[in-house]
Amino acid sequence: MKVDGKHTRTIWVEADGWSVGIIDQTALPHRFTTVRLATLADVARAIATMQVRGAPLIGATAAYGVALALRADASDEALERACATLLATRPTAINLKWALDEMVAAVRNRPREERVAAAYRRAAEISDEDVAINQAIGRHGAKLIAAMAANKQPGAPMQVLTHCNAGWLATVDFGTALAPVYVAHDQGVALHVWVDETRPRNQGAALTAWELGQHGVPHTVIADNTGGHLMQHGMVDMVVVLPSPTIDFSVSDGLTEVPIEQRGADEVATMTGRTADGRVETVRIVPEGSAVANYAFDVTPARLVTGLITERGIVAPRRDALAAAFVERAQGTSRSIAR
Amino acid sequence: MKVDGKHTRTIWVEADGWSVGIIDQTALPHRFTTVRLATLADVARAIATMQVRGAPLIGATAAYGVALALRADASDEALERACATLLATRPTAINLKWALDEMVAAVRNRPREERVAAAYRRAAEISDEDVAINQAIGRHGAKLIAAMAANKQPGAPMQVLTHCNAGWLATVDFGTALAPVYVAHDQGVALHVWVDETRPRNQGAALTAWELGQHGVPHTVIADNTGGHLMQHGMVDMVVVLPSPTIDFSVSDGLTEVPIEQRGADEVATMTGRTADGRVETVRIVPEGSAVANYAFDVTPARLVTGLITERGIVAPRRDALAAAFVERAQGTSRSIAR
Repeated sequence: MKVDGKHTRTIWVEADGWSVGIIDQTALPHRFTTVRLATLADVARAIATMQVRGAPLIGATAAYGVALALRADASDEALERACATLLATRPTAINLKWALDEMVAAVRNRPREERVAAAYRRAAEISDEDVAINQAIGRHGAKLIAAMAANKQPGAPMQVLTHCNAGWLATVDFGTALAPVYVAHDQGVALHVWVDETRPRNQGAALTAWELGQHGVPHTVIADNTGGHLMQHGMVDMVVVLPSPTIDFSVSDGLTEVPIEQRGADEVATMTGRTADGRVETVRIVPEGSAVANYAFDVTPARLVTGLITERGIVAPRRDALAAAFVERAQGTSRSIAR
Repeated sequence: MKVDGKHTRTIWVEADGWSVGIIDQTALPHRFTTVRLATLADVARAIATMQVRGAPLIGATAAYGVALALRADASDEALERACATLLATRPTAINLKWALDEMVAAVRNRPREERVAAAYRRAAEISDEDVAINQAIGRHGAKLIAAMAANKQPGAPMQVLTHCNAGWLATVDFGTALAPVYVAHDQGVALHVWVDETRPRNQGAALTAWELGQHGVPHTVIADNTGGHLMQHGMVDMVVVLPSPTIDFSVSDGLTEVPIEQRGADEVATMTGRTADGRVETVRIVPEGSAVANYAFDVTPARLVTGLITERGIVAPRRDALAAAFVERAQGTSRSIAR
């Protein structure tokens, strides 16, 4: 999507043909800076410090990390070390494990002199596959948005509510939950996005608002509690809140079987932003001595979900419908974390 | 309630017998400081800058403001000017209007030489009446908490969820929604309070957490979105979210008839707290150029409320039950704002 009017992905191979460029997402929304990754260590640091985040982007970045590692040493031992190093950066991100397995499969049975080229090729494919999936999600979702928009008063924009950041910054391009918004907007459908700020890490206020603004999509940031008021007053037509590839066929009861990550207290107790004179500061909100609990997710009951917008169309939120749409995966497991 | 182990109200007459002391609530939770109010202008500034906030406390402070004004000039004109000045500080706070009317009634028909003493007397009564109402709310609510606690596993504390700050800082003492918690805690009932941080002004994280901590009540601060997860997992026994004297008999449909105040964008876009080296700083979270909407309240449908804990006992959330419990008010109106 666009940054300062120029089409940009979240990860790319630099003009030198081998080093890898990323956006430093920890500096957003206050500063747009890119980082050049030249070594395995650079990539591991970028993932661990969340300069890149979001399950699909973490996978693509790790894939390029393997390519950079093999460029320095194409041995089996180096390949194994690279995978172990990268896996340790965000151990619960299943896309990371998947991407590393893909990279090993792509290079393992090749002679050393072919491995680097094969690795760059597969990393590029992984990136392009992510974009293709997201574009498909975008097309299916945009059809739905256009159909709903046709039932509105002429001139009234479609009102879409989003939570967290499942936009293009979390992927290689287009985003998951936001892909339908971008495709519909680019097709000329009038829409406006209510952006939940998404406490405690503020991914909505910091990232979603920034990327919508850069692409020119009208939007308004709200406190997370505001959604109920907007819905009571008919000001929300549609809620898109989840990255649709994140389907875990191993879970039958989300409430009892999905472990809810508990994260550090500082994410709730402190807030980072920019002061009036341009410095980035972290301030504490909660009094010293008060305990803080930080449950990173919760479970939305299926009865509250109308449909899942996936790259294969819109699927009912039921096990049978999901299994029919994803026959090849219904026996396996896939769980990923997009923050 | 207690501050540093010492019983403290939010407003008091100083040892000199005439000037008025308050807690500067804008400095909480990071610094406990008191302010001495000696003139009408001091009082107006304290209310306007929210050094005092919460409907009942605003009313009591304004009452003392009239007493201080009459001390300088006990004429009818001065009385009228004082009321106009104080009313302009928070024009939508109905408790403020009520307290000023009470003060005018208490002094108007007296000779000038008696007005100052009468004003101090009535201001003290308004303060004490607030404490008495809150203690009654506390006793009724604490009975309910004790009854529910008796049905829990031995040793398991009652889990109470609260939103915003309707604690003793919003009143003269004891608080409204928190009064039952304080009374039950002081009676030895084991309880733990989940404190919603309450975006965007963080009254929960800043004020409720501070006052519970000072009084020794176990509590944990959470992001506002966390309540659903806690309830899904049986971790909340009771939600007390509203100051119970705030009953508006003029409204029949809250959704269409209650105006929802829209406040400034900066409350959502920025956050104030303390840096690691002790400075208080305001930082911006939202990117420049993104719109922000700030709806200050929303309407909780009556079907989600089990009962209203009032100073006259627990009342069903229905017009007939409320009218029966508050016969003398059912024809009038009373709306107040507690922030």
